[in-house]
Amino acid sequence: MFKPFALAVAVSTLLATSALAQAAPDLTAAVALRERALADDTAYALTRELTTEVGPRIGGSPGYRRAAAWAVRRLTALGFRNVHEEEFPVGVWTRGEGRAELVGAYAQPLAVAALGGSAATPPQGIEAELAVFRTWPEFLAAAPDSLRGRIAVVLQPTTRTQDGSGYGAAGVMRREGPSEAARRGAVAYLHRSLGTEMSRAPHTGSTRYAEGVARIPAAALSTADAAQLERLAALGRPLRLRLLLTPTFDPNGRSTNVVGEIPGRGRLADEVILLAAHLDAWDLGTGAIDDATGVAAVTAAARLVAQTPGRGPRRTLRVVLYGAEETGPAGEAYATRNADSLSRIVLASESDFGDGPIWRARLPGALAAAPFGRAVAQALSPLRIFTTPEPARGAGVDVAALEQRGVPVFALSLDGSDYFDLHHSAEDTFDKVNPQDLAQVVAAWSTLVFLAATSEVDFRAATTASVPPAGGSGR
Amino acid sequence: MFKPFALAVAVSTLLATSALAQAAPDLTAAVALRERALADDTAYALTRELTTEVGPRIGGSPGYRRAAAWAVRRLTALGFRNVHEEEFPVGVWTRGEGRAELVGAYAQPLAVAALGGSAATPPQGIEAELAVFRTWPEFLAAAPDSLRGRIAVVLQPTTRTQDGSGYGAAGVMRREGPSEAARRGAVAYLHRSLGTEMSRAPHTGSTRYAEGVARIPAAALSTADAAQLERLAALGRPLRLRLLLTPTFDPNGRSTNVVGEIPGRGRLADEVILLAAHLDAWDLGTGAIDDATGVAAVTAAARLVAQTPGRGPRRTLRVVLYGAEETGPAGEAYATRNADSLSRIVLASESDFGDGPIWRARLPGALAAAPFGRAVAQALSPLRIFTTPEPARGAGVDVAALEQRGVPVFALSLDGSDYFDLHHSAEDTFDKVNPQDLAQVVAAWSTLVFLAATSEVDFRAATTASVPPAGGSGR
Repeated sequence: MFKPFALAVAVSTLLATSALAQAAPDLTAAVALRERALADDTAYALTRELTTEVGPRIGGSPGYRRAAAWAVRRLTALGFRNVHEEEFPVGVWTRGEGRAELVGAYAQPLAVAALGGSAATPPQGIEAELAVFRTWPEFLAAAPDSLRGRIAVVLQPTTRTQDGSGYGAAGVMRREGPSEAARRGAVAYLHRSLGTEMSRAPHTGSTRYAEGVARIPAAALSTADAAQLERLAALGRPLRLRLLLTPTFDPNGRSTNVVGEIPGRGRLADEVILLAAHLDAWDLGTGAIDDATGVAAVTAAARLVAQTPGRGPRRTLRVVLYGAEETGPAGEAYATRNADSLSRIVLASESDFGDGPIWRARLPGALAAAPFGRAVAQALSPLRIFTTPEPARGAGVDVAALEQRGVPVFALSLDGSDYFDLHHSAEDTFDKVNPQDLAQVVAAWSTLVFLAATSEVDFRAATTASVPPAGGSGR
Repeated sequence: MFKPFALAVAVSTLLATSALAQAAPDLTAAVALRERALADDTAYALTRELTTEVGPRIGGSPGYRRAAAWAVRRLTALGFRNVHEEEFPVGVWTRGEGRAELVGAYAQPLAVAALGGSAATPPQGIEAELAVFRTWPEFLAAAPDSLRGRIAVVLQPTTRTQDGSGYGAAGVMRREGPSEAARRGAVAYLHRSLGTEMSRAPHTGSTRYAEGVARIPAAALSTADAAQLERLAALGRPLRLRLLLTPTFDPNGRSTNVVGEIPGRGRLADEVILLAAHLDAWDLGTGAIDDATGVAAVTAAARLVAQTPGRGPRRTLRVVLYGAEETGPAGEAYATRNADSLSRIVLASESDFGDGPIWRARLPGALAAAPFGRAVAQALSPLRIFTTPEPARGAGVDVAALEQRGVPVFALSLDGSDYFDLHHSAEDTFDKVNPQDLAQVVAAWSTLVFLAATSEVDFRAATTASVPPAGGSGR
């Protein structure tokens, strides 16, 4: 049987003079909370509501406004306090039509989706010869101006990985492809969807135009259509494509971050633990795994912590549902607006990588080796989550602005093996969500947040403290 | 070790006076052919060519004309003789646009595909309240005129089965739904796609309008969207849908059946074994499993039989690639045009249920019990195919017209467990084809056809002969 008090005394003796010194975490209560969370279906119900009743919700769009209203209503009904929206400016891109078809000897439609932020084609579309590249390096090797008047296509596939590294490596095709193509004289740009499945559903996502380069229309080809184009290109005859994209862009839109709190009590109530997810979602699907499950998980976790029998959190829990993760600076907007009170935020993280399960926990600084970290490891281990001594970094797109400003972060790594089968595509819908995995995510979040919200740990001090030697950590 | 000659003598003694009497099949050559077929990639290459270079190909469409030209070219190159097209009239339906979106409190797009043959909405679309039914019987229970001015939606799911029976049971939703809805006063009709997967890709397919009933626009909802609508309907508030379908119909189109032969030799050369598949395909995908694999399998099988070392077929093999299975009377057109020579066709079958594998063989009449049938069973058994005593019936949509006119048929049952995940949807593309399964299909067809084309069996007599008692069959 595990004896948290005895362990805490032993470790605190070791670390008595460091910032890691702390009182014993209440592991018994954390374990009870974890088990309660595993049996709780609040997150699954919230995911169903948001994806069903709202659906697509690009930041600043009418869909987003309904999502924000839903979130305010839901947070309020679940007992959150200080529920409000924090408005910020955002450009609102609206998809319009997207069609592509080969013309000539191999005439056939191809499934495409304009990249978020893409410019439109002329109203009658573009028709041009294709310049097909199997890989990104082959494309980059094309000389400036060598693609004059053509539509550049890059067909490099995305590798399936647990941690999303395959997506990271392929992402350059989407982010930088249009401007690199324009630099080479292309009139439009297509790339193989950043998807790991084989389907006809293209994956959208934001692109960025470089300064001083023509903003050419850009779209993702479905993985199956990319494979088709690769077979056609191998036949060696010229291929001509007709492309029509009619997106519009309103630079003067407004979105909101939705905030709700579980107030702390006593001496630590002024300290805030920020639980983030993003409420906006791409328009092709209903944003189930990206990121309704995140919204649902952090909301359900905060509520479960609030409901801990006999003792809520000492620190204040603040759920922030960001309103333009996909398309804009929601994280920056939040950090800027709340600049004066950021020092009160002692810990933050975001859930934005699907419905789980979680396989790894990372804590701020050297905390994994402290009693707090050992309690976290102990409490999460039955969920098949290991706690690594590696300090947490990169805890989410929206909380990056906090992290850059010195807010300590933790990171619970979701298994992303299947995430990019669905992500940003029409297939990101509620039916794909696994309720057991989602419950595990909620259990991990609530357990960790409970331990953090009830302990005396000084997270800011711990983040700047050095990692103790391995021998001293007892791991 | 199996001794075909000894067995044949024993059985032919038993059946000497019946129509089933026959010389011994050449099982050794059949087995060698089977093994050669398993290692042959002709069918996979043909599937790739047709789906890649042609793609969508509704009978009578420009895509179909390219498919027919491809087939003539390919059959000729593969050594078929008497390669030609047989033209027939067909109505040509062209999809146009298809869009559906909920308006109001739950505004969101829904993924739909017009049913083949559907009428168009007015150019500005239809907007109406939905009348949602969970099952077909609940829908049929709605009184005449009770759906006045509404869009009827039937959400019954299709059951996954190996033999396609789940599709058979659900098919009434697509075929009869529009007219049943019109009888009840509906202005449009939607049904849950006849798909067994959960996805955003709707499955099209032909519908039929009853005489004397309004021809209302009709579309299939993707399975995921049907599930979404079921969740929304359960909220109990009225749902309004905006529907736009812009198909067009040319009643005066022409399609062709493409024919090629492997001539027989000697006394039986006038007898024809007809190997069917259909060259046309729905427009949403590239017709890979429906039915490029069938086209490829029967073509490759006939060629493999022709190439049997030292001995081609005695009977003539005739490959017929039908040109409007999905939308028209290609089978009737063939039977009518060739009415004077149908008596020469002694055996026929069609491959039109995907890429396999085959799990069951059925033969004409009582042939399973005859030496011919026992040789077939012996030769197919290593492919994990059992030969059932049940006489073959329903050997394919296109050969039904032959079967009705007394042509004996055999049937090789393909495993359809996954077929309706893809069938008639945008996901029916080459990447889904399993080359090992397809090779097994070719092996089964070539083995059976070789045995049929080289034996003395009188298939027409066998089809009308009664089944011998079980004891006599040795099974």
